[in-house]
Amino acid sequence: MAKPLEFWFEFASTYSYPAAMQVEEACKAAGVPLIWKSFLLGPVFAAQGMTDSPFNIYPVKGAYMWRDMERICAEAGLGFGKPSSFPRGSLLAARIAARFADADWTGAFIRAVYTANFAEDRDIADDAVVAQILGEIGQDAEAVLADTLTPENKAILRHNTEAALGKGIFGAPTMIVGDELFWGHDRLDHAIAWATRA
Amino acid sequence: MAKPLEFWFEFASTYSYPAAMQVEEACKAAGVPLIWKSFLLGPVFAAQGMTDSPFNIYPVKGAYMWRDMERICAEAGLGFGKPSSFPRGSLLAARIAARFADADWTGAFIRAVYTANFAEDRDIADDAVVAQILGEIGQDAEAVLADTLTPENKAILRHNTEAALGKGIFGAPTMIVGDELFWGHDRLDHAIAWATRA
Repeated sequence: MAKPLEFWFEFASTYSYPAAMQVEEACKAAGVPLIWKSFLLGPVFAAQGMTDSPFNIYPVKGAYMWRDMERICAEAGLGFGKPSSFPRGSLLAARIAARFADADWTGAFIRAVYTANFAEDRDIADDAVVAQILGEIGQDAEAVLADTLTPENKAILRHNTEAALGKGIFGAPTMIVGDELFWGHDRLDHAIAWATRA
Repeated sequence: MAKPLEFWFEFASTYSYPAAMQVEEACKAAGVPLIWKSFLLGPVFAAQGMTDSPFNIYPVKGAYMWRDMERICAEAGLGFGKPSSFPRGSLLAARIAARFADADWTGAFIRAVYTANFAEDRDIADDAVVAQILGEIGQDAEAVLADTLTPENKAILRHNTEAALGKGIFGAPTMIVGDELFWGHDRLDHAIAWATRA
């Protein structure tokens, strides 16, 4: 019996994009239950003393990352363009993904938001764009937003972010299997292998 | 005709250890010429405003790294123990590897130094330990050290480190194929694939 894999992601995170596009299919193929875990990187970076993306704080690393993203997405057959704004605010989209982590449309929503940000350069920080994306995947945007924005449902994302800090998460994507953390897009296969070993 | 792969490494760098243990065999198997590039991370981190290893500056990331190293080394069949001092000074060993990058014993020396630091907890910052390692791989330590420490040969490591900065290297290991950088142990396969594609 494979262990579940928690996929901890943030919509502004570049390397989360290819991982988020691939994780559901990869888990399905391996028989690994997938648990979507939406959280915010801002408080996680702040806890490490950083007030911006490390890719902006360390521009040489940032330059490498943008080129690396091009290569990774080309190899994976994913569209990619450097967003005209980075990192983009992801609060509303992250709240929706946290609130509806178990819905049958969650994977489609997550992939659509990542595609909007990293392949289509749409401003996912704009609530209207998020509503549009909900419509595009066949959801009733008004109903989803109203449900997401109740005080108790808004709290789910905050709870997830606090849980991320408690688990020693320092970046995204992070895959958790049992007590084991795997950080980075390129560790997705290792995490799945860990989930399926006896 | 495969392109050459430059392997940029630092003896204090944790993730360089499994990569350095594997790169020569992996390149040979793929028909990729390997070029050893010894450099120092200190000036590279300093250029990014860091005066210590990022794994010490960001302890949560550091804690993850030590566990990750255990997993990676176990999977690769490599001995591993967290060194009692980290990061260890690597100046003399790095100078030797820079000076003798083309020698037929360079790979053996590099692997022996990494093994000493990360599997045997020997103090590679101690010149006597480095001399001992040279002896263990069948070299005349006195002759190697005398040759390494001439002013013009000491300059090779400094030159390599400046070249690393010029190429946009920000960490180790870094593999360079043509103009393409690949950062991290887990990207070794990608670098080799890049070197062998038409």
